[in-house]
Amino acid sequence: MDLLGDWWTPLVLREAFYGIRRFDEFQRGLGIARNTLSDRLHRLVDEGLLEKQPYQTEPTRYDYVLTAKGRDFFSVILAMTRWGDDWLAGEAGPPITFHHTSCGHDTHAEVVCAHCREPMRAEDTVARMGPGYPARLAERPDVVRRFAR
Amino acid sequence: MDLLGDWWTPLVLREAFYGIRRFDEFQRGLGIARNTLSDRLHRLVDEGLLEKQPYQTEPTRYDYVLTAKGRDFFSVILAMTRWGDDWLAGEAGPPITFHHTSCGHDTHAEVVCAHCREPMRAEDTVARMGPGYPARLAERPDVVRRFAR
Repeated sequence: MDLLGDWWTPLVLREAFYGIRRFDEFQRGLGIARNTLSDRLHRLVDEGLLEKQPYQTEPTRYDYVLTAKGRDFFSVILAMTRWGDDWLAGEAGPPITFHHTSCGHDTHAEVVCAHCREPMRAEDTVARMGPGYPARLAERPDVVRRFAR
Repeated sequence: MDLLGDWWTPLVLREAFYGIRRFDEFQRGLGIARNTLSDRLHRLVDEGLLEKQPYQTEPTRYDYVLTAKGRDFFSVILAMTRWGDDWLAGEAGPPITFHHTSCGHDTHAEVVCAHCREPMRAEDTVARMGPGYPARLAERPDVVRRFAR
Protein backbone atom coordinates (compact mmCIF):
# COMPACT_ATOMS: atom_id res chain seq x y z
CA MET A 1 0.00 0.00 0.00
CA ASP A 2 2.91 2.27 0.78
CA LEU A 3 3.91 2.75 -2.81
CA LEU A 4 0.58 4.33 -3.62
CA GLY A 5 1.00 7.15 -1.13
CA ASP A 6 -2.45 8.56 -0.48
CA TRP A 7 -5.77 8.33 -2.28
CA TRP A 8 -4.77 10.98 -4.78
CA THR A 9 -2.75 8.29 -6.48
CA PRO A 10 -5.62 6.17 -7.82
CA LEU A 11 -7.39 9.40 -8.81
CA VAL A 12 -4.35 10.46 -10.82
CA LEU A 13 -4.25 7.00 -12.42
CA ARG A 14 -7.95 7.16 -13.17
CA GLU A 15 -7.43 10.40 -15.10
CA ALA A 16 -4.63 8.70 -17.03
CA PHE A 17 -7.04 5.87 -17.97
CA TYR A 18 -9.42 8.53 -19.30
CA GLY A 19 -6.67 9.65 -21.64
CA ILE A 20 -5.19 12.57 -19.68
CA ARG A 21 -1.42 12.98 -20.23
CA ARG A 22 -0.56 16.62 -19.53
CA PHE A 23 0.25 18.14 -16.14
CA ASP A 24 -2.22 21.00 -16.60
CA GLU A 25 -5.06 18.67 -17.54
CA PHE A 26 -4.45 16.46 -14.51
CA GLN A 27 -4.41 19.60 -12.42
CA ARG A 28 -7.65 20.97 -13.83
CA GLY A 29 -9.46 17.64 -13.72
CA LEU A 30 -8.52 16.89 -10.11
CA GLY A 31 -8.49 20.39 -8.61
CA ILE A 32 -5.34 19.34 -6.76
CA ALA A 33 -2.51 21.64 -5.62
CA ARG A 34 0.31 21.74 -8.18
CA ASN A 35 3.01 20.62 -5.77
CA THR A 36 0.88 17.71 -4.56
CA LEU A 37 0.20 16.66 -8.14
CA SER A 38 3.88 16.98 -9.02
CA ASP A 39 4.79 14.77 -6.05
CA ARG A 40 2.22 12.09 -6.99
CA LEU A 41 3.26 12.06 -10.65
CA HIS A 42 6.93 11.67 -9.72
CA ARG A 43 6.12 8.87 -7.32
CA LEU A 44 4.16 7.05 -10.02
CA VAL A 45 7.08 7.48 -12.42
CA ASP A 46 9.53 6.20 -9.76
CA GLU A 47 7.32 3.19 -9.11
CA GLY A 48 7.05 2.43 -12.81
CA LEU A 49 3.31 3.04 -13.30
CA LEU A 50 3.78 6.14 -15.46
CA GLU A 51 6.58 7.16 -17.79
CA LYS A 52 7.59 10.61 -19.00
CA GLN A 53 7.57 11.20 -22.75
CA PRO A 54 8.87 14.55 -24.03
CA TYR A 55 6.44 16.36 -26.31
CA GLN A 56 8.37 19.61 -26.74
CA THR A 57 11.86 21.00 -26.21
CA GLU A 58 13.15 24.38 -24.96
CA PRO A 59 11.84 24.03 -22.43
CA THR A 60 11.37 20.27 -22.39
CA ARG A 61 7.86 19.31 -21.38
CA TYR A 62 6.53 15.85 -20.76
CA ASP A 63 3.44 13.75 -21.19
CA TYR A 64 2.79 11.27 -18.38
CA VAL A 65 1.85 8.00 -20.01
CA LEU A 66 0.77 4.71 -18.42
CA THR A 67 3.24 1.81 -18.55
CA ALA A 68 2.09 -1.83 -18.71
CA LYS A 69 2.27 -1.94 -14.89
CA GLY A 70 0.19 1.22 -14.70
CA ARG A 71 -2.38 0.08 -17.27
CA ASP A 72 -2.86 -3.15 -15.35
CA PHE A 73 -3.90 -1.13 -12.29
CA PHE A 74 -7.10 -0.38 -14.20
CA SER A 75 -8.53 -3.60 -12.79
CA VAL A 76 -8.23 -2.15 -9.28
CA ILE A 77 -9.93 1.09 -10.38
CA LEU A 78 -12.73 -0.96 -11.96
CA ALA A 79 -13.25 -2.97 -8.76
CA MET A 80 -13.32 0.24 -6.69
CA THR A 81 -15.76 1.85 -9.10
CA ARG A 82 -18.09 -1.15 -8.95
CA TRP A 83 -18.05 -1.12 -5.16
CA GLY A 84 -18.74 2.63 -5.17
CA ASP A 85 -21.61 2.22 -7.64
CA ASP A 86 -23.18 -0.46 -5.44
CA TRP A 87 -22.76 1.29 -2.11
CA LEU A 88 -22.18 5.01 -2.57
CA ALA A 89 -24.02 6.17 -5.71
CA GLY A 90 -27.14 8.25 -5.08
CA GLU A 91 -30.52 7.92 -6.75
CA ALA A 92 -29.20 9.50 -9.92
CA GLY A 93 -27.09 6.42 -10.58
CA PRO A 94 -23.39 5.90 -11.26
CA PRO A 95 -21.27 8.96 -12.13
CA ILE A 96 -19.40 7.00 -14.79
CA THR A 97 -20.37 4.04 -16.94
CA PHE A 98 -18.18 1.70 -18.95
CA HIS A 99 -18.45 0.34 -22.45
CA HIS A 100 -16.47 -2.82 -23.22
CA THR A 101 -15.41 -2.39 -26.84
CA SER A 102 -14.21 -5.99 -27.20
CA CYS A 103 -17.74 -7.37 -26.62
CA GLY A 104 -19.68 -4.25 -27.60
CA HIS A 105 -21.74 -3.93 -24.40
CA ASP A 106 -22.26 -1.33 -21.70
CA THR A 107 -21.15 -3.18 -18.63
CA HIS A 108 -19.51 -3.11 -15.23
CA ALA A 109 -16.68 -5.09 -13.69
CA GLU A 110 -16.99 -8.23 -11.59
CA VAL A 111 -14.26 -9.79 -9.51
CA VAL A 112 -14.31 -13.53 -10.13
CA CYS A 113 -12.32 -16.66 -9.37
CA ALA A 114 -9.83 -17.37 -12.18
CA HIS A 115 -10.73 -21.06 -11.95
CA CYS A 116 -14.54 -21.29 -11.80
CA ARG A 117 -15.28 -17.74 -13.12
CA GLU A 118 -17.84 -17.20 -10.35
CA PRO A 119 -17.63 -14.21 -7.96
CA MET A 120 -15.10 -14.49 -5.12
CA ARG A 121 -16.73 -13.42 -1.88
CA ALA A 122 -15.26 -13.04 1.59
CA GLU A 123 -17.52 -15.84 2.89
CA ASP A 124 -16.33 -18.44 0.37
CA THR A 125 -12.63 -17.53 0.18
CA VAL A 126 -9.88 -18.58 2.59
CA ALA A 127 -6.55 -16.72 2.79
CA ARG A 128 -3.42 -18.82 3.34
CA MET A 129 0.16 -17.88 4.05
CA GLY A 130 1.93 -17.93 0.67
CA PRO A 131 5.55 -18.71 -0.24
CA GLY A 132 6.49 -15.02 -0.15
CA TYR A 133 5.09 -14.35 3.33
CA PRO A 134 7.74 -12.42 5.35
CA ALA A 135 9.77 -15.01 7.28
CA ARG A 136 10.21 -12.70 10.28
CA LEU A 137 6.42 -12.70 10.80
CA ALA A 138 5.54 -16.26 9.82
CA GLU A 139 6.14 -17.78 13.28
CA ARG A 140 4.33 -15.15 15.31
CA PRO A 141 1.41 -16.73 17.20
CA ASP A 142 -1.05 -14.02 16.18
CA VAL A 143 -0.04 -14.43 12.53
CA VAL A 144 -0.31 -18.23 12.62
CA ARG A 145 -3.72 -17.94 14.28
CA ARG A 146 -4.90 -15.51 11.64
CA PHE A 147 -4.39 -18.01 8.83
CA ALA A 148 -5.29 -21.20 10.69
CA ARG A 149 -8.86 -21.95 9.80
CA MET B 1 -11.84 7.95 -2.18
CA ASP B 2 -12.24 10.39 0.68
CA LEU B 3 -14.24 8.04 2.82
CA LEU B 4 -11.37 5.61 2.96
CA GLY B 5 -8.98 8.09 4.55
CA ASP B 6 -5.50 6.75 3.97
CA TRP B 7 -4.09 3.37 2.99
CA TRP B 8 -4.39 2.05 6.53
CA THR B 9 -8.08 1.64 5.83
CA PRO B 10 -7.84 -1.23 3.30
CA LEU B 11 -5.21 -2.85 5.54
CA VAL B 12 -7.63 -2.72 8.49
CA LEU B 13 -10.35 -4.19 6.28
CA ARG B 14 -7.99 -6.91 5.06
CA GLU B 15 -7.36 -7.99 8.67
CA ALA B 16 -11.14 -8.10 9.19
CA PHE B 17 -11.47 -10.42 6.17
CA TYR B 18 -8.88 -12.71 7.80
CA GLY B 19 -11.19 -13.00 10.80
CA ILE B 20 -9.72 -10.34 13.10
CA ARG B 21 -12.36 -8.65 15.30
CA ARG B 22 -10.61 -7.31 18.40
CA PHE B 23 -8.84 -3.98 18.76
CA ASP B 24 -5.70 -5.57 20.20
CA GLU B 25 -5.43 -8.11 17.39
CA PHE B 26 -5.78 -5.42 14.74
CA GLN B 27 -3.12 -3.46 16.58
CA ARG B 28 -0.69 -6.38 16.83
CA GLY B 29 -1.24 -7.52 13.25
CA LEU B 30 -0.76 -4.08 11.72
CA GLY B 31 1.84 -2.60 14.06
CA ILE B 32 -0.16 0.63 13.88
CA ALA B 33 -0.33 3.34 16.57
CA ARG B 34 -3.37 2.83 18.82
CA ASN B 35 -4.82 6.27 18.20
CA THR B 36 -4.45 5.87 14.42
CA LEU B 37 -6.15 2.47 14.57
CA SER B 38 -8.93 3.86 16.76
CA ASP B 39 -9.50 6.67 14.26
CA ARG B 40 -9.63 4.27 11.27
CA LEU B 41 -11.98 1.85 13.04
CA HIS B 42 -14.36 4.66 13.98
CA ARG B 43 -14.31 5.99 10.45
CA LEU B 44 -15.16 2.55 9.08
CA VAL B 45 -18.01 2.26 11.60
CA ASP B 46 -19.28 5.74 10.65
CA GLU B 47 -19.15 4.83 6.97
CA GLY B 48 -21.02 1.57 7.57
CA LEU B 49 -18.26 -0.90 6.62
CA LEU B 50 -17.79 -2.20 10.18
CA GLU B 51 -20.19 -2.46 13.08
CA LYS B 52 -19.48 -2.67 16.79
CA GLN B 53 -20.77 -5.71 18.66
CA PRO B 54 -20.33 -5.79 22.45
CA TYR B 55 -18.59 -8.93 23.71
CA GLN B 56 -18.30 -7.97 27.39
CA THR B 57 -19.75 -5.45 29.86
CA GLU B 58 -18.17 -3.50 32.76
CA PRO B 59 -16.34 -2.17 30.93
CA THR B 60 -18.14 -2.65 27.65
CA ARG B 61 -15.78 -3.88 24.95
CA TYR B 62 -16.53 -4.38 21.30
CA ASP B 63 -15.74 -6.61 18.39
CA TYR B 64 -15.46 -4.83 15.03
CA VAL B 65 -17.39 -6.91 12.52
CA LEU B 66 -17.79 -6.43 8.78
CA THR B 67 -21.20 -5.32 7.50
CA ALA B 68 -22.52 -6.36 4.08
CA LYS B 69 -21.04 -3.13 2.67
CA GLY B 70 -17.71 -3.94 4.28
CA ARG B 71 -17.68 -7.58 3.18
CA ASP B 72 -18.34 -6.48 -0.39
CA PHE B 73 -15.13 -4.42 -0.31
CA PHE B 74 -13.30 -7.77 -0.39
CA SER B 75 -13.52 -7.62 -4.18
CA VAL B 76 -11.36 -4.47 -4.14
CA ILE B 77 -8.81 -6.13 -1.82
CA LEU B 78 -8.70 -9.14 -4.16
CA ALA B 79 -8.09 -6.93 -7.20
CA MET B 80 -5.31 -5.06 -5.34
CA THR B 81 -3.75 -8.33 -4.21
CA ARG B 82 -3.76 -9.70 -7.73
CA TRP B 83 -2.10 -6.57 -9.08
CA GLY B 84 0.49 -6.72 -6.29
CA ASP B 85 1.19 -10.40 -7.00
CA ASP B 86 1.73 -9.65 -10.68
CA TRP B 87 3.89 -6.55 -10.28
CA LEU B 88 5.37 -6.37 -6.79
CA ALA B 89 5.95 -9.90 -5.49
CA GLY B 90 9.58 -11.02 -5.39
CA GLU B 91 11.02 -14.34 -6.52
CA ALA B 92 9.63 -16.09 -3.47
CA GLY B 93 6.12 -15.65 -4.85
CA PRO B 94 2.93 -14.14 -3.41
CA PRO B 95 2.80 -13.46 0.34
CA ILE B 96 -0.78 -14.72 0.53
CA THR B 97 -2.70 -17.23 -1.54
CA PHE B 98 -6.44 -17.79 -1.78
CA HIS B 99 -8.56 -20.90 -1.73
CA HIS B 100 -12.05 -20.64 -3.18
CA THR B 101 -14.13 -22.98 -1.04
CA SER B 102 -17.15 -22.84 -3.32
CA CYS B 103 -15.22 -24.44 -6.21
CA GLY B 104 -12.51 -26.15 -4.15
CA HIS B 105 -9.51 -24.65 -5.95
CA ASP B 106 -6.49 -22.56 -5.03
CA THR B 107 -6.99 -19.52 -7.19
CA HIS B 108 -6.62 -15.80 -7.67
CA ALA B 109 -9.04 -13.06 -8.64
CA GLU B 110 -9.68 -11.72 -12.11
CA VAL B 111 -11.56 -8.55 -12.97
CA VAL B 112 -13.92 -9.35 -15.83
CA CYS B 113 -16.75 -7.79 -17.80
CA ALA B 114 -20.11 -8.74 -16.27
CA HIS B 115 -21.46 -9.29 -19.79
CA CYS B 116 -18.87 -11.36 -21.69
CA ARG B 117 -16.91 -12.62 -18.62
CA GLU B 118 -13.62 -11.75 -20.29
CA PRO B 119 -11.03 -9.48 -18.62
CA MET B 120 -11.71 -5.73 -18.78
CA ARG B 121 -8.55 -3.91 -19.79
CA ALA B 122 -7.83 -0.22 -20.12
CA GLU B 123 -7.27 -0.60 -23.87
CA ASP B 124 -10.69 -2.18 -24.57
CA THR B 125 -12.83 -0.18 -22.15
CA VAL B 126 -14.30 3.28 -22.68
CA ALA B 127 -15.50 5.45 -19.79
CA ARG B 128 -18.64 7.54 -20.33
CA MET B 129 -20.32 10.22 -18.29
CA GLY B 130 -23.03 8.43 -16.28
CA PRO B 131 -26.43 9.69 -15.03
CA GLY B 132 -24.95 10.53 -11.62
CA TYR B 133 -22.07 12.66 -12.93
CA PRO B 134 -21.94 15.93 -10.94
CA ALA B 135 -23.99 18.51 -12.90
CA ARG B 136 -21.67 21.38 -11.87
CA LEU B 137 -18.80 19.64 -13.74
CA ALA B 138 -20.62 18.10 -16.69
CA GLU B 139 -20.40 21.19 -18.93
CA ARG B 140 -16.75 22.01 -18.31
CA PRO B 141 -14.78 21.77 -21.57
CA ASP B 142 -11.97 19.73 -20.04
CA VAL B 143 -14.50 17.28 -18.61
CA VAL B 144 -16.42 16.95 -21.86
CA ARG B 145 -13.15 16.40 -23.73
CA ARG B 146 -12.09 13.71 -21.28
CA PHE B 147 -15.09 11.55 -22.08
CA ALA B 148 -15.43 12.33 -25.78
CA ARG B 149 -13.78 9.53 -27.67
